[in-house]
Amino acid sequence: MDNNLLAKYAKLTVCKGANVQKGQYVVIKAPYFAAEFARMCALEAYKREASYVECNLFDEQLTRLHYKYASEDELKNLPQWQYDKSKYAIDKGCCYIYITSPIPDVFNDVDAKLLADVNLAVNQKMKPLQYYTTNSVGQWTIVAYPNVKWAKKLFSDLDEDDANEKLLKAILQAVRVDEENDPNILWDKHDKDLLDHCRKLNEYNFESLHFVNDLGTDLYVGLVRDHIWAGGMEITTDGRKISFNPNMPTEEVFTMPDRNRVNGKVVATKPLCHNGKVFSDFSFVFKDGLIVDFDAKTEKEYLRQVLDMDEGTRHIGEVALISYDSPISNQNILYYNTLFDENASCHLALGACYPSNIKNGDLMDDEQLLANGGNISINHIDFMFGSKDMNVYGKTYSGEEIQIFKCGNFCI
Amino acid sequence: MDNNLLAKYAKLTVCKGANVQKGQYVVIKAPYFAAEFARMCALEAYKREASYVECNLFDEQLTRLHYKYASEDELKNLPQWQYDKSKYAIDKGCCYIYITSPIPDVFNDVDAKLLADVNLAVNQKMKPLQYYTTNSVGQWTIVAYPNVKWAKKLFSDLDEDDANEKLLKAILQAVRVDEENDPNILWDKHDKDLLDHCRKLNEYNFESLHFVNDLGTDLYVGLVRDHIWAGGMEITTDGRKISFNPNMPTEEVFTMPDRNRVNGKVVATKPLCHNGKVFSDFSFVFKDGLIVDFDAKTEKEYLRQVLDMDEGTRHIGEVALISYDSPISNQNILYYNTLFDENASCHLALGACYPSNIKNGDLMDDEQLLANGGNISINHIDFMFGSKDMNVYGKTYSGEEIQIFKCGNFCI
Repeated sequence: MDNNLLAKYAKLTVCKGANVQKGQYVVIKAPYFAAEFARMCALEAYKREASYVECNLFDEQLTRLHYKYASEDELKNLPQWQYDKSKYAIDKGCCYIYITSPIPDVFNDVDAKLLADVNLAVNQKMKPLQYYTTNSVGQWTIVAYPNVKWAKKLFSDLDEDDANEKLLKAILQAVRVDEENDPNILWDKHDKDLLDHCRKLNEYNFESLHFVNDLGTDLYVGLVRDHIWAGGMEITTDGRKISFNPNMPTEEVFTMPDRNRVNGKVVATKPLCHNGKVFSDFSFVFKDGLIVDFDAKTEKEYLRQVLDMDEGTRHIGEVALISYDSPISNQNILYYNTLFDENASCHLALGACYPSNIKNGDLMDDEQLLANGGNISINHIDFMFGSKDMNVYGKTYSGEEIQIFKCGNFCI
Repeated sequence: MDNNLLAKYAKLTVCKGANVQKGQYVVIKAPYFAAEFARMCALEAYKREASYVECNLFDEQLTRLHYKYASEDELKNLPQWQYDKSKYAIDKGCCYIYITSPIPDVFNDVDAKLLADVNLAVNQKMKPLQYYTTNSVGQWTIVAYPNVKWAKKLFSDLDEDDANEKLLKAILQAVRVDEENDPNILWDKHDKDLLDHCRKLNEYNFESLHFVNDLGTDLYVGLVRDHIWAGGMEITTDGRKISFNPNMPTEEVFTMPDRNRVNGKVVATKPLCHNGKVFSDFSFVFKDGLIVDFDAKTEKEYLRQVLDMDEGTRHIGEVALISYDSPISNQNILYYNTLFDENASCHLALGACYPSNIKNGDLMDDEQLLANGGNISINHIDFMFGSKDMNVYGKTYSGEEIQIFKCGNFCI
């Protein structure tokens, strides 16, 4: 691996991703094999005078062993210190750096019900702390790191080292890290472009969107009143107003659908990797916002269990627009990972909405969000349905219809 | 690396080292680059129906960054959740598996006073929980794993991979893991041999030992009344009476010196690696148990700071006998690591005694231990002074003198 490029990537992660502040407490979560990259991020954070960089290294293959062999009691009862540990960092006004590196099929032989039950129990325990990232009270960023199994899934014809190297190159390209340029400057421009796009859509203030293509998608998505289109850079909602990029890469602009005004059918165009399991060729039928029917070629039973985790998982909380002709989309790589694939294609998210996608959303409690059409759930699961032939139409409150996408791309 | 031999090593660690019990909570601490070996240990523990295997992966090179750049306040004030986390496992009657892999000189450019201060603060915070391993309430074991920097320090003429492989082989040889034999059976025999040795020394019930060699060591070490020689296997002191091997490898038999009856000079014969710093060519002069003078060729100032950490660090808490002609000694490798080097040579430990080395010691509080000649300290730092020409004499309470070592080896 090229250490100079990795160091550039680490600096981008710390500066444009989390935008670590002087004196700030930083939490890094990374797979053990990314420990050296995590350490590079820590060094960059310390260069910006972070007070402390807490680094949590995990091993998903060990997690698999827990699911297969640990006592159910231990799995479901998250110890109090785990909660206190998160609260400790949040009380200090921390920022989060999540280094993600999905290992395909790692939980394939894990009992699906147990997986869902444990996730539910853990999420319920940690729920009181989720506002911190969900509401962007502090900065958080997700960046990706390669691993051999992931790389071999994408580039099966290459040997392990070459595949891994190729995946790293693709990741770096997607986040605009190269030898010549300062990625921080490229991201300033990129953030500005996304901001311009959002402003345009916000000015139209659409009542609903209509998605239609030849694959079978024919879906009406109502938008909540006073919805806000957002994308790229965000600003912390506490008094500090610190800018950060929650996702690197990011190409999307997204807003809040009305949880009760979604009707029709949506057909996914990319597989979805969730908790190490892969749903492929799946579709949902909505009636008044609720998923009333669904199908999937793989893991249908686990998908049902996910949908049944809480009432909100059967509604959507996010709708996002990305041109088919976008940088990541043009790489023509199926990453089997949301961070990349969601930025290559229009997508929806099952589950929780982002309160920042509605005016004064950060001041609303769950009840108020629901009353305004927002969705509440312990889940937020993106799935992709954009296609080359996708047309999208926006309907304004005055009844005017505006074409937003023509043949997969923005035309507004 | 040979995965079959590693799996054998993991099984030995779990069975003969920690002796994991059905339904037991297991805590593993390992450097991130030993994650796969840690996972093998976890699998073995789950095969023995452990209730949960908590695995903590650390990165000493990141710890170095903390020492260099983090706020002193964060470094010295261990968060409460860290304490609670340890207590959680102890309350469940856990056992510990420590996978050690020293990175030479990793803290070389860290401020020595800060290092000592932080260690002191952390140890003070965690002190109420130290009884669990110090008194062997639950099982614990330390095993070693190679790393490239360590391997290159030992075998500088080899390239990185070959050096690492050679170090792994040496480690496996030292813990009796090979292709042909079942190491569990070899350890049963080894534990029995050490036990026989202890019984002999306990029968003599020496009042004091006298060490003398041509390098300048001429040291009288009083032993506490009712001292107990121990070595190899231990038994948990709670009701469960579970056998375990705290150190793998282990070749020593050891007992409790009288903290106030040590007189003369001891000259170290191997460098000592402590917190990533290396003391070499050092010696101590004792008067009535107290170190009244010392010297060191390297890191003398840091050694002074360590000695000043608390009063007990200037006294000794352990004396151990190992034949110069022992398996690890015969490898003729200086490991720069206590786990190995202490098993190649007679040694003493600055700081805390093991309560199990005196009759009813596990029932004594600090005051009672001190009153009986035991030593109390937040430190326990072994250093080696055995040599090829070492003679050791034991004096009984009836005034008889028995030669225990002749020319470096047991002759009793």
